Amino acid sequence: MKAYRVAIVGATGMVGQEFIKVLEQRNFPVESLDLLASDRSAGKKLYFNHREIEVKETTPESFKGIDIALFSAGADISRYFAPLAVQTGAAVVDNSSAWRMDPKVPLVVPEINVEDIKKHKGIIANPNCSTIQMVVPLYPLHKTNPIKRIIASTYQSVSGTGIAAMDELTNQTKQVLNGQTVVPHVYSHQIAFNVLPEIDVFLDNAYTREEWKMVEETRKIMHDDNIAVSATCVRVPVFIGHSEAVTVEFTNSISPDEARRILSQSPGVKLMDDPAISLYPQAYSAAGTDDVYVGRIRRDVSHSNSLVMWIVADNIRKGAALNSVQIAEEMIKRDWLRPSGG
Amino acid sequence: MKAYRVAIVGATGMVGQEFIKVLEQRNFPVESLDLLASDRSAGKKLYFNHREIEVKETTPESFKGIDIALFSAGADISRYFAPLAVQTGAAVVDNSSAWRMDPKVPLVVPEINVEDIKKHKGIIANPNCSTIQMVVPLYPLHKTNPIKRIIASTYQSVSGTGIAAMDELTNQTKQVLNGQTVVPHVYSHQIAFNVLPEIDVFLDNAYTREEWKMVEETRKIMHDDNIAVSATCVRVPVFIGHSEAVTVEFTNSISPDEARRILSQSPGVKLMDDPAISLYPQAYSAAGTDDVYVGRIRRDVSHSNSLVMWIVADNIRKGAALNSVQIAEEMIKRDWLRPSGG
Repeated sequence: MKAYRVAIVGATGMVGQEFIKVLEQRNFPVESLDLLASDRSAGKKLYFNHREIEVKETTPESFKGIDIALFSAGADISRYFAPLAVQTGAAVVDNSSAWRMDPKVPLVVPEINVEDIKKHKGIIANPNCSTIQMVVPLYPLHKTNPIKRIIASTYQSVSGTGIAAMDELTNQTKQVLNGQTVVPHVYSHQIAFNVLPEIDVFLDNAYTREEWKMVEETRKIMHDDNIAVSATCVRVPVFIGHSEAVTVEFTNSISPDEARRILSQSPGVKLMDDPAISLYPQAYSAAGTDDVYVGRIRRDVSHSNSLVMWIVADNIRKGAALNSVQIAEEMIKRDWLRPSGG
Repeated sequence: MKAYRVAIVGATGMVGQEFIKVLEQRNFPVESLDLLASDRSAGKKLYFNHREIEVKETTPESFKGIDIALFSAGADISRYFAPLAVQTGAAVVDNSSAWRMDPKVPLVVPEINVEDIKKHKGIIANPNCSTIQMVVPLYPLHKTNPIKRIIASTYQSVSGTGIAAMDELTNQTKQVLNGQTVVPHVYSHQIAFNVLPEIDVFLDNAYTREEWKMVEETRKIMHDDNIAVSATCVRVPVFIGHSEAVTVEFTNSISPDEARRILSQSPGVKLMDDPAISLYPQAYSAAGTDDVYVGRIRRDVSHSNSLVMWIVADNIRKGAALNSVQIAEEMIKRDWLRPSGG
């Protein structure tokens, strides 16, 4: 079996470390693994399959001989280094927001639009975490009954911000329990025992960029610019796992049973819906797993063609590292690593 | 100034203790204060205006001579004792769900439907916390531009469940931080660093009773059975303060500025809406205060006549104790303590 020279950019970050874990767990065909990060992290040691690897600083020369580069080091790093990696012949799967809405860059959730990969020019974008977990279950429903409108409220964990935010939640929580004063660093305000309706920057229309990603990325992934989306994205004091309360208006009426029937056969989706025994998706139990969990499916009593549901996934796995690795796996399987011509 | 003989039923509970605090802070005209609770709590000592009061067991005889009885001890206690209190001549303001949807019982948020108090037969019901804070800002908008549909997702603090839930959040949080096993008691699942889309029991239509309260109570308070409401009620690891992401469809288009203009002049509402400086309502800062805070007001990009907003209040104060005391104050001020005839 052919193996590939893989590089991870942002290897010491939250998603970077999950890339390593996912590559191990899925027996990804790795010939060599380069771990790249900022100069601050260079020299650190990380493990891949029980083998110690020293983290190196990302430079324009880092990508020589690399077949696949997995990026998750922020939009600026991706904007600068991803084209350089492509020039030297690597296929880039980028988890930042840098290239997602570029018309020439496929934005891919393999369960939905794997064919889009084929048209890549070197970079394939990984969607935002809150978008991925929402579209995985909505797309199979959309295929049988086109979605007209989505209203989402998110309950997003701090791991989406990164390791510093995980530490901030831990430290602030201890401080509150000890009656000490909390001084926020990562977030605008205290996150311990609080919720913050602010993720990423505010746009002129008073939505945040995180909310706007859900609008634009949903349409691009699902190939339907007519889907209306509105979201409120909220940070909650949870370490791992994003939850979403989603109201979905379809073209025609659809029963919860019909939705459950479709979702029970949908790739990447796990139905978890039995109110009688308080069975519904939870961030706590989704953490560390691969599926997108759906429950609390019910008729929206405020609209005849609408359903309400509760969607949860590990934002670092399916929301980021896992989805990126799945994209790379599809590229290998379908022989799409080379950019398409034209 | 006339003063009144007041009884608090459920005095040792979360809301009961807040009743005492609110009566003190607002200089409620108290001639005497009886603190009633279960036999388990009888003998406990609480303070009102620096005076020690011994908690007594609630019995059918507890209400002799009482002018105003504030109930917050659960629906069963209210169902049994509230009619007995009324028989002995007390006016009951009941914070349980027992009487809210009884057509003969007014369900009152003073800023909205104070006139409904007048028709009472002895019991006035205090709405559910998540409903109160939602309708306080929505009603003034509804008056100028009738609301057709409301979609709400809540982020509700554990204080709504009571003192045992506050302790459970504290203890579970310590256990998680110490790497210990968590065994849930109050909630179905772990609440520390997790969110649970389950508040009150599940109904046959797969909504929870908490969600259904928002449907029914909103209509009753706003005197409009045509308002469509759908809610997802979620418990979050916050001690005090409920937050709500609310999408509101109006009959006609309304701009965020127009909504802000109306809300800036609305009773009980405090506008807190400046994204440029990350100013928006937060549970953490609302705790211990009286207003309903509204921010993140924006045009719903998924619907032309719709706005999205973020509403936060202290669920124990405006959501419970404060609203009940405000009802009692209006009864005194308007001379409505006696039940209406007929």
